[in-house]
Amino acid sequence: MNVTKKISEDTLNAFCKDSNAYLQGSLKGPLTGLTFAAKDILDIKGYVTGGGNPDWKNTHKVAQNTAWAVDILVKAGASMVGKTHTDELTRGILGENAHYGTPINPRAKDRVPGGSSSGSASSVAGGLVDFSLGSDTGGSVRIPASFCGLYGIRPTHGRIPLQGILLQAPSYDTIGWFTRNPDLFAKVGYVLLQSKPPVYRPRHLIIATDAFKIADKMIEDVLKPVVEKLGSLFDSFSQEQLAPSGLVEWSKQQRTLAGPEGVKSIKNWIDRTNPRFSFSVTEGYLMASNITDQQVKEAKFLRKRIVSRMNTLLTNQTVVCIPTAPSLPPLLKENLSIKRQLVPRIVQLTCIAGTLGAPQINIPAAEIDGVPIGLSLIGARGSDEMLLAFASKVANALGI
Amino acid sequence: MNVTKKISEDTLNAFCKDSNAYLQGSLKGPLTGLTFAAKDILDIKGYVTGGGNPDWKNTHKVAQNTAWAVDILVKAGASMVGKTHTDELTRGILGENAHYGTPINPRAKDRVPGGSSSGSASSVAGGLVDFSLGSDTGGSVRIPASFCGLYGIRPTHGRIPLQGILLQAPSYDTIGWFTRNPDLFAKVGYVLLQSKPPVYRPRHLIIATDAFKIADKMIEDVLKPVVEKLGSLFDSFSQEQLAPSGLVEWSKQQRTLAGPEGVKSIKNWIDRTNPRFSFSVTEGYLMASNITDQQVKEAKFLRKRIVSRMNTLLTNQTVVCIPTAPSLPPLLKENLSIKRQLVPRIVQLTCIAGTLGAPQINIPAAEIDGVPIGLSLIGARGSDEMLLAFASKVANALGI
Repeated sequence: MNVTKKISEDTLNAFCKDSNAYLQGSLKGPLTGLTFAAKDILDIKGYVTGGGNPDWKNTHKVAQNTAWAVDILVKAGASMVGKTHTDELTRGILGENAHYGTPINPRAKDRVPGGSSSGSASSVAGGLVDFSLGSDTGGSVRIPASFCGLYGIRPTHGRIPLQGILLQAPSYDTIGWFTRNPDLFAKVGYVLLQSKPPVYRPRHLIIATDAFKIADKMIEDVLKPVVEKLGSLFDSFSQEQLAPSGLVEWSKQQRTLAGPEGVKSIKNWIDRTNPRFSFSVTEGYLMASNITDQQVKEAKFLRKRIVSRMNTLLTNQTVVCIPTAPSLPPLLKENLSIKRQLVPRIVQLTCIAGTLGAPQINIPAAEIDGVPIGLSLIGARGSDEMLLAFASKVANALGI
Repeated sequence: MNVTKKISEDTLNAFCKDSNAYLQGSLKGPLTGLTFAAKDILDIKGYVTGGGNPDWKNTHKVAQNTAWAVDILVKAGASMVGKTHTDELTRGILGENAHYGTPINPRAKDRVPGGSSSGSASSVAGGLVDFSLGSDTGGSVRIPASFCGLYGIRPTHGRIPLQGILLQAPSYDTIGWFTRNPDLFAKVGYVLLQSKPPVYRPRHLIIATDAFKIADKMIEDVLKPVVEKLGSLFDSFSQEQLAPSGLVEWSKQQRTLAGPEGVKSIKNWIDRTNPRFSFSVTEGYLMASNITDQQVKEAKFLRKRIVSRMNTLLTNQTVVCIPTAPSLPPLLKENLSIKRQLVPRIVQLTCIAGTLGAPQINIPAAEIDGVPIGLSLIGARGSDEMLLAFASKVANALGI
């Protein structure tokens, strides 16, 4: 209905300029009257899914069907008003796109928005839409939610059908969403999870000491009083080191397992196309293509140990809190070598929920000089509704 | 004078569309009335040198001076009517450019033109200009000359000043040129070499048996009668194996020495820019960036042995003949994995002159079903004029 208006108002470079995809929401549903944007990896019938890369777009046909997640939101009343920019084929965590330009982080205009769901985060943070869909394989909803000051979720792996999306690493791919307020965050969730508010709430909080140690001192310091307030919402809390062998090892394990899946999903297309990629995208792909079968075998063994370890900690009414990201969003002007140093540290935090397939929400919990700092809550697999409903309580307690 | 006409006539996609660079030739000179094109790595005062990559172009300023080689041709009377496409930053041998499109090979429209001096070869082969300037680091004039059926030269390294060009690997970079006929080939050469016809001619021909073995059987077969005719122009000939340890080893040596220079020349720019490259360009760069100091040390030692070996063969009036390329130009539609297999075989042939810094000319000596097949003559360092003057005699003898 307002697509032309919405996109002409896009001063954030959040939307794909070459698509006028629009789906009118149903007139009678829980989300009627709301607008949303969809990351350009979600199929919209009649449009080519561009995936943030012009050569992908040039070599693919129009989608025959609309992605399941978009369709169910439209049926629930929300209008899909545009496709949003993404890191190339979801392969990036900072939100930069050299082909289409980097969406602006409305909360920190000289810094990256985070990615790969960059345009989805940017469009919500800038008020262009009520909410948006993204995807999260290695942090692609959680990091832009943290950097742009939004509620964002990576749901339990497998709960939301991936039908109609451009896959990266199917064992890790999930569809998530962003909102500016916690009530809508949960409301959208009940539609996508085909579910309703939970009958239980979290009772025990685990503060992951090793995760906080990964963050810059300034991040740790600003989150400390937040975590103290958060603790008052629980019956009990404890401090735990999640990874006895170190989160560095955990993150390498995830890269070793997700990497080859990410190679497999585009290998034949690369061979046919020799596509244009930003230098860093090809670099990441080639690093993953060097992973050996033996390394995969060892990583699988480690993953079992990690899951077992976390299952002893994460009972159904427990949540683990960690910083979402280890630092402020990097400045746009920083060199690649500086930005690249941050990526392994980010993955040390995002790999926890990724390895478990567990849900993680970002709460826009703090700021440093106006730049958003996110706090994350991780629940047991399947506890998505508990986390979503709890977000409002956290927001109240923190006064956000 | 005719730039608009020329470029509007560019049905070959040989010229850079976004530049109207034009330099009127002097009215009184040996090349007056002729037109030429210049690879877009040669500076033209007042224009940005694009180097075949949009991010290079976006991050560089207009040239303050015109490249020495362009300037001396204009002073000699030739008009520079346009900049031509190149593989990205000269890093490619097949002539494909995903950003600007691949120039058409007028002699084999379903096949690559060869590169990196792709547009320079295409524009001459298609009759858009009388001659053109390219550059040759690892084969970037010789291979497109072979694939497009042209006279083309890699001159003695160091003879033509590189002032005002985008460098790749300075110890190997040279400026070369293309023509359709052998007389103009020499005439342009005397201007660029600031020289005149030689007083001596080649007397002994060496047929490099190991180089011919690298070529496909069909190439070897079609060149065999050509080499026999060629032999009649010499006082004597012999068959020699150039590389006792194998041309594979020789080519690895050149890659090991040229690779790190190619990394050094753009490393800081990559770090600042995170540029868009075709997948294969980043892949090649990263392979080169993994070369170790120890490998360089060993390659330098081997280079000395190669130079010493070749100096015993290549006296001043001797030339070595080899196939310019080991196969037909690959089909445009072939997958990257197929095209990529050809590159190491090409370098086994191009590394001979490259390692010596010796001049090599391509003669459009044969055809298979209309597709050009080039034969190369390599002379001792400094024997450029001898080779250029000899090209006419070869053409006469071969009836081309």
